[in-house]
Amino acid sequence: MVTNTQVIFSKVPSTFPVSGEHITINKSQFDLEAPLAEGEFIVKTLVLSVDPYMRGRMRDASIKSYAPAFILGQPMDGHSVMQVIKSNSVKTKEGDYLYGMGKFEEYTKWNDKTASEQNLVVRNDPKSNGIPVSYYVGVLGMPGLTAHYGLYAIGNIKKGETIYISAASGAVGQLAGQISKAHGLRVVGSAGSAEKVAYLKEIGFDAAFNYKTDDTDAKLTELCPNGVDVYFENVGGKMLEIVLTHMNTFGRIIGCGMISQYNLAKPEKVGNLMNIVSKRLKFEGFIIFDHPEAESQFLKDVTQMILDKKIRYQETHTKGIENTPEALLDVLTGKNFGKQVVDVANV
Amino acid sequence: MVTNTQVIFSKVPSTFPVSGEHITINKSQFDLEAPLAEGEFIVKTLVLSVDPYMRGRMRDASIKSYAPAFILGQPMDGHSVMQVIKSNSVKTKEGDYLYGMGKFEEYTKWNDKTASEQNLVVRNDPKSNGIPVSYYVGVLGMPGLTAHYGLYAIGNIKKGETIYISAASGAVGQLAGQISKAHGLRVVGSAGSAEKVAYLKEIGFDAAFNYKTDDTDAKLTELCPNGVDVYFENVGGKMLEIVLTHMNTFGRIIGCGMISQYNLAKPEKVGNLMNIVSKRLKFEGFIIFDHPEAESQFLKDVTQMILDKKIRYQETHTKGIENTPEALLDVLTGKNFGKQVVDVANV
Ligand SMILES: NC(=O)c1ccc[n+]([C@@H]2O[C@H](COP(=O)([O-])OP(=O)(O)OC[C@H]3O[C@@H](n4cnc5c(N)ncnc54)[C@H](OP(=O)(O)O)[C@@H]3O)[C@@H](O)[C@H]2O)c1
Ligand SMILES: NC(=O)c1ccc[n+]([C@@H]2O[C@H](COP(=O)([O-])OP(=O)(O)OC[C@H]3O[C@@H](n4cnc5c(N)ncnc54)[C@H](OP(=O)(O)O)[C@@H]3O)[C@@H](O)[C@H]2O)c1
Repeated sequence: MVTNTQVIFSKVPSTFPVSGEHITINKSQFDLEAPLAEGEFIVKTLVLSVDPYMRGRMRDASIKSYAPAFILGQPMDGHSVMQVIKSNSVKTKEGDYLYGMGKFEEYTKWNDKTASEQNLVVRNDPKSNGIPVSYYVGVLGMPGLTAHYGLYAIGNIKKGETIYISAASGAVGQLAGQISKAHGLRVVGSAGSAEKVAYLKEIGFDAAFNYKTDDTDAKLTELCPNGVDVYFENVGGKMLEIVLTHMNTFGRIIGCGMISQYNLAKPEKVGNLMNIVSKRLKFEGFIIFDHPEAESQFLKDVTQMILDKKIRYQETHTKGIENTPEALLDVLTGKNFGKQVVDVANV
Repeated sequence: MVTNTQVIFSKVPSTFPVSGEHITINKSQFDLEAPLAEGEFIVKTLVLSVDPYMRGRMRDASIKSYAPAFILGQPMDGHSVMQVIKSNSVKTKEGDYLYGMGKFEEYTKWNDKTASEQNLVVRNDPKSNGIPVSYYVGVLGMPGLTAHYGLYAIGNIKKGETIYISAASGAVGQLAGQISKAHGLRVVGSAGSAEKVAYLKEIGFDAAFNYKTDDTDAKLTELCPNGVDVYFENVGGKMLEIVLTHMNTFGRIIGCGMISQYNLAKPEKVGNLMNIVSKRLKFEGFIIFDHPEAESQFLKDVTQMILDKKIRYQETHTKGIENTPEALLDVLTGKNFGKQVVDVANV
């Protein structure tokens, strides 16, 4: 028997979730020695990802949305890298790394059917290519795919254009900026601290500003003198309202997320929408879960960029699964700097 | 010498324009007998179109937008059918009907260069096909093309889907509904009077309601039980905010216009925008002036539908060019029923 620490969804929050109230830690026992039926295997979680969209899953299960509600009293789940420690399945062998929607607990018993439902795939590349395992839930995981897909499939980015990225230092934003730069765009970003802004300039953004201390409207006028052709929308609300007035004709707004709204009891309304018509804008939302077909090209492209040292990727590591609630809250309040991950076990 | 009555843009309005103040009538003299230089010709205006977008042109010329500002002190212009009454041009002959951006005056002298800048084209079809000349500024003119292009190129309408159309009895809306119906969609519309709603049902809308007396949210729930796949957005503001909550995943919003906002000193803000992301909506604006290439297919399709009596088209005729200011104001306040035209001369 080993202790299996779990992260439990325990109450629906109405604004910001509180650790110990809406998300709690449970310690249960896990029998590593119990015999496995055919097709069963046990994993230990190596690293897990906390992401903004999880706030949307912390809702009453009767409300439908793109990602299923977390189940009250049950472990949360999310993108993780796990390692198989015991297997009676022909699909996985001891030592394999798996990527997919893992449970937020130290040990999980899967079988081939449940594993395939959660899209667990063997991903042993980090064993040999020197890329950190945590990258596989970040720049090479769901957020990375989001940046890549958003830019190409939705944003239709073109060399010479100007892109503006909000929440630019985050898991999605920092990669979106670096891909855009590699593609030949002028890249402008905003983030919520001086440290984040300095980092954006270091990794090649043409310009960056702190939207908390600077005037966004004035900064966009100054830093996007030819207007904004593509807006990578991560924030929503007042930010969107201002950016709309800076868009160029035939501009695209990549509707990725609106994190400024997720914890508001009453979301804000947005002005300046007539710009969508008068400037012939395309404002298109997407959810990356719909596009597994885009993953292989993305992995090829971005793995190569990483190996070629053409990309840097900032992460915040929280140690210990019991600190997952705080790690998630940090993402929702902007305390994370870069991709927020939780290191659950040593690799 | 004949009297040439002209409609003059005389002052920039801040809310609704007022006839006699922001738009005035001028009577000048026109010499029909003066000799014409090579390439010159004279037209008399038969019918002219007043359209919502004209409100946007009544602005300070320093503000850039998709259509040029009207020039203070000069005749307004807009889509018209004109007849050539004298010509020294090889491109037009006496008696020809022309369609394009005519001046809001009874007589105009053009030359080949200015005529081509205003996209004047010979359109003699109504001389032989029995279709009223006024249709060529409505169902077969700019508003008709807007409906056709919006549905196909932006809305990507598909058989079996539900479309909701606001300002549905208008110049654009009534055709959009009938094309959608012919294409196999469920078609729901709203308009601002009982008479307009009754008309929508007569011409084949599956359902229609009066957004002024009915609750839009409740009506959409009732009349679009499977949600809205395509929203033909003519109105903006509160209407858009409500429709967003009725959209289906992967729905399209055809960003055609936001007439409820054109006369507000301070446009409204709109809530529920997170639906664009969570439902993967595409909200795309367009301006029909960008798409002359779409005209020939449209004319072919819709002319045939009219000749086959598959389409009905409601118009409001105002007699006399001196009543143009009121006709435009009627469109902006919803007093028009169907396409608003001004009959300037007998055909
Ligand atoms: N469509 C999809 O499939 C998909 C997939 C992944 C992510 N997303 C979306 O992409 C966006 C970024 O996600 P991510 O994973 O890259 O997160 P992240 O940027 O790494 O972390 C979230 C960041 O958002 C910023 N933020 C938090 N509250 C804010 C507020 N009230 N106003 C403005 N900024 C605020 C903070 O940075 P600052 O210090 O800069 O404020 C925070 O660090 C989110 O909207 C997320 O929902 C969408
Ligand atoms: N994108 C383009 O290239 C393009 C081209 C043509 C037209 N448009 C747009 O398409 C829309 C319809 O134009 P149209 O030519 O067909 O005009 P229309 O519908 O024939 O006339 C305007 C109608 O709008 C409605 N309306 C007026 N004020 C309103 C308000 N405050 N709230 C709600 N509805 C209001 C009225 O009908 P009710 O009685 O139903 O209220 C009025 O009859 C407009 O937004 C216009 O700007 C766009």
